[in-house]
Amino acid sequence: MEIRKLKEFVSLAKAQKNKKKIVVAAAHSQSVLSSVKKATEMGLVEPILIGDKTKIKEIARYISWDISKIELIAQKDVIKAVTQSVALVKENKVDILMKGIVSTKDLLKAVLNKNLGLKEEKILSHIAFFESPYYHKLFCITDAAMSITPDLITKTYMIKNAVNTYIKLGIEKPKVAILAPVEIVNPEMEATVHASLLTQMNKRKQIKNCIVDGPLALDNIISKKAATEKGIDSEVAGDADIIITPDINTGNVLYKSLNFLGGTSSAALVIGAKVPIVLTSRSDNETTKLMSIALAAAMK
Amino acid sequence: MEIRKLKEFVSLAKAQKNKKKIVVAAAHSQSVLSSVKKATEMGLVEPILIGDKTKIKEIARYISWDISKIELIAQKDVIKAVTQSVALVKENKVDILMKGIVSTKDLLKAVLNKNLGLKEEKILSHIAFFESPYYHKLFCITDAAMSITPDLITKTYMIKNAVNTYIKLGIEKPKVAILAPVEIVNPEMEATVHASLLTQMNKRKQIKNCIVDGPLALDNIISKKAATEKGIDSEVAGDADIIITPDINTGNVLYKSLNFLGGTSSAALVIGAKVPIVLTSRSDNETTKLMSIALAAAMK
Repeated sequence: MEIRKLKEFVSLAKAQKNKKKIVVAAAHSQSVLSSVKKATEMGLVEPILIGDKTKIKEIARYISWDISKIELIAQKDVIKAVTQSVALVKENKVDILMKGIVSTKDLLKAVLNKNLGLKEEKILSHIAFFESPYYHKLFCITDAAMSITPDLITKTYMIKNAVNTYIKLGIEKPKVAILAPVEIVNPEMEATVHASLLTQMNKRKQIKNCIVDGPLALDNIISKKAATEKGIDSEVAGDADIIITPDINTGNVLYKSLNFLGGTSSAALVIGAKVPIVLTSRSDNETTKLMSIALAAAMK
Repeated sequence: MEIRKLKEFVSLAKAQKNKKKIVVAAAHSQSVLSSVKKATEMGLVEPILIGDKTKIKEIARYISWDISKIELIAQKDVIKAVTQSVALVKENKVDILMKGIVSTKDLLKAVLNKNLGLKEEKILSHIAFFESPYYHKLFCITDAAMSITPDLITKTYMIKNAVNTYIKLGIEKPKVAILAPVEIVNPEMEATVHASLLTQMNKRKQIKNCIVDGPLALDNIISKKAATEKGIDSEVAGDADIIITPDINTGNVLYKSLNFLGGTSSAALVIGAKVPIVLTSRSDNETTKLMSIALAAAMK
């Protein structure tokens, strides 16, 4: 199975046995509520809104959303709204956590809290799915936002988180490309060293449920032809699902290059917690916000 | 003045008082000769071909290029062909050096040779110009290929080389954006630290003939609106000419993302030597090869 378009997340979400519940922490934000409204009306999720009740109602009126049947928990204090949202996840009452009008830092602090928090895997990581006119299926990049200079072991966790997401989307053995600027091992380029080690760790089953190959530069990750011309024999080249970027500089510029100069559509999540976290930013467009919710709702 | 399209390099090259001479080192390569043929026929350059004479003539026949009036120097040995090409530059007989069927390593070795070589600035750097449907003028990226992890001082040389190129294209005070994943100074992110230092060095006139600002993430480099929404007040945001990437991982992925997933056209050179070096690779398309020659020929 492969996913070719972001909108397939919508069908996957609709095909779920039970509609996913999404809690919005500090929900009194117009841009956030607009996308939650749309996702709700499309039948993707069932929301619980926690935040400033008066403001939420005001915004709902403004965007013509009848929230009389939506669960609404009044909490003016932003940090408390986050804590209550996290508690709902902890109690298995919701399936998705969404950031409202609260800083990413404060939200993640609550998620990472040792006693009350939701950390399930070794690390939280950021994963972004892209639909590009120049590639035959969706691919994802991890990590454009969370780890500054991940070490080798952290990268194994990044892979694990991303592979788990693919499995939850019904894709059994995703292909993982480890990005570097070149295809050969150069001891002076840590990206190429990590890439080789991760490839071998996969062969030795230290990294499971996926096919890893690297170092691969982006042209060879995307294009089988480019790889063949360069004499690179790789099962992953030209057919990668997951691209592991070597550090935040690289991940961030690739993410932004695709979104601002590449004409792609994208959807992003923070993963590795008990539930997927939708963490869109103001600069994201409407499609990205909606598709990020759909992606979270599509996960088994 | 600003340059909006790569093809403006063609007009600039044609407007030169004296047609630029280009020497092709180890010229017996079909893909290289095809682009040199085109550039010659368009009146952009006057070539000198050094390489295997029989093979060059064979290829010329095959691509229907009458080279009876073209200067052709027979030299079967690739390394000697490179040395002779470099010598011609040294003697001020040519204005552009182009790589033929020789490894980049061997070509740069000759260029960097202390006695016979052509190094003029402190470093050689790679500069790539892009024409994107999502930006209002050409912009360039440096460095996608040469420095693995440039230190602060190396970055000042990268800026100097790129600014000199702009000046040679007739653009007096280019705007230089220092790329990072965020816009704030984070001591744990060297890219942001370097960016701030380079900005202040520019203010103190340690970096001249340009306007430097950073750290800036790519969205804010490309879009004034994105920057304004984030409260970033920058003369460079949304109007950058030159993007300085923090390291080869970042530069390379941005270069390849634009070329393979961004629908851009590009032209690239190695600069910092006595003359610009055209160093296209097999994976470059025809436009890139031709435009790289045009770019070199457009420089004053």
